[in-house]
Amino acid sequence: MEKLEMHTKAHTEFRDITEEVQAAVGRSKVRSGTALIFVPHTTAGLTINENADPDVTGDIMATLERMVPWRQAHYRHNEGNSAAHIKASMMGFSAAVPIENGALVLGVWQALYFCEFDGPRTRQVWVQVSGA
Amino acid sequence: MEKLEMHTKAHTEFRDITEEVQAAVGRSKVRSGTALIFVPHTTAGLTINENADPDVTGDIMATLERMVPWRQAHYRHNEGNSAAHIKASMMGFSAAVPIENGALVLGVWQALYFCEFDGPRTRQVWVQVSGA
Amino acid sequence: MEKLEMHTKAHTEFRDITEEVQAAVGRSKVRSGTALIFVPHTTAGLTINENADPDVTGDIMATLERMVPWRQAHYRHNEGNSAAHIKASMMGFSAAVPIENGALVLGVWQALYFCEFDGPRTRQVWVQVSGA
Repeated sequence: MEKLEMHTKAHTEFRDITEEVQAAVGRSKVRSGTALIFVPHTTAGLTINENADPDVTGDIMATLERMVPWRQAHYRHNEGNSAAHIKASMMGFSAAVPIENGALVLGVWQALYFCEFDGPRTRQVWVQVSGA
Repeated sequence: MEKLEMHTKAHTEFRDITEEVQAAVGRSKVRSGTALIFVPHTTAGLTINENADPDVTGDIMATLERMVPWRQAHYRHNEGNSAAHIKASMMGFSAAVPIENGALVLGVWQALYFCEFDGPRTRQVWVQVSGA
Repeated sequence: MEKLEMHTKAHTEFRDITEEVQAAVGRSKVRSGTALIFVPHTTAGLTINENADPDVTGDIMATLERMVPWRQAHYRHNEGNSAAHIKASMMGFSAAVPIENGALVLGVWQALYFCEFDGPRTRQVWVQVSGA
């Protein structure tokens, strides 16, 4: 398993990590199998979405913020970042992606996004490759 | 890996694909292992839910539409289908399901649903089986 | 595959099942691989989040209830628990977690939560371990 490190730059940020994950898959030498991409945090998650128009991820971030505002009177968690925990659980913490011919197989418009909801921070993404 | 093709019929549609996935698992001849069901799109997703009463998936679709309306003033993506991208990320793009005795093992009330959020379109579902 | 049984105690409850899953991984004798944790229900789900401050999961439950109220005029499902079905699909029904040295590898603050949305009930969590 490889542990990739990254530095997010904004409080809320969808970062395309497809190339970094692809490189880790290449280093594994596995030709056919599955990649498990796992985010070991609780205020950041992982999703797949379109990378052609950056307005798509912008709209996802803005809409999540409307659904789960940063400040709400009912929050009790004393660190004040409950919204980040909730958004991360909504997006999820992992993706499993098929590998063929030594590379991730994604849909034409798909990219893997690390979803930072309480940055900027130093973060990790774990890539575990199984197969042969 | 098998690539199943389907034609969705409505703009928003939860389609029970359990039987089609089950058939693909059967063709793989794997008796014990895991099926990764993967949707290679960005405006359609995948979830598990009840198939006994069609009102369940109807209520899920209607409630997602209330949470993420098709038209909202803050959307910037120029294709106009940001809601579909957001709903797809909320449902997710894959499911991993155990296989025993050559068949998917799901809960009594569970079915696999392809979630179309910007149809009708020709779509794919990928089924990757691992095990022995 | 192990089928763990549990009895939830409240209508809505996030229950930390990390230790029970860890024990099942230990019994499997697999040293390096992946654990698939799967919830075979449609009104309960699974997520990962922080276990240090119980207010975090409290805030997640309360915010999901605001997003998806138990009573809404548009629900048609006659069992009256549509909200539970929707929340379960939002959290998801499974998690895949890496295994190293015979144990789950989670982030420092991460715990696995069984998400009861229509309890109390007798429930199951399935743990399927692959690897060597």
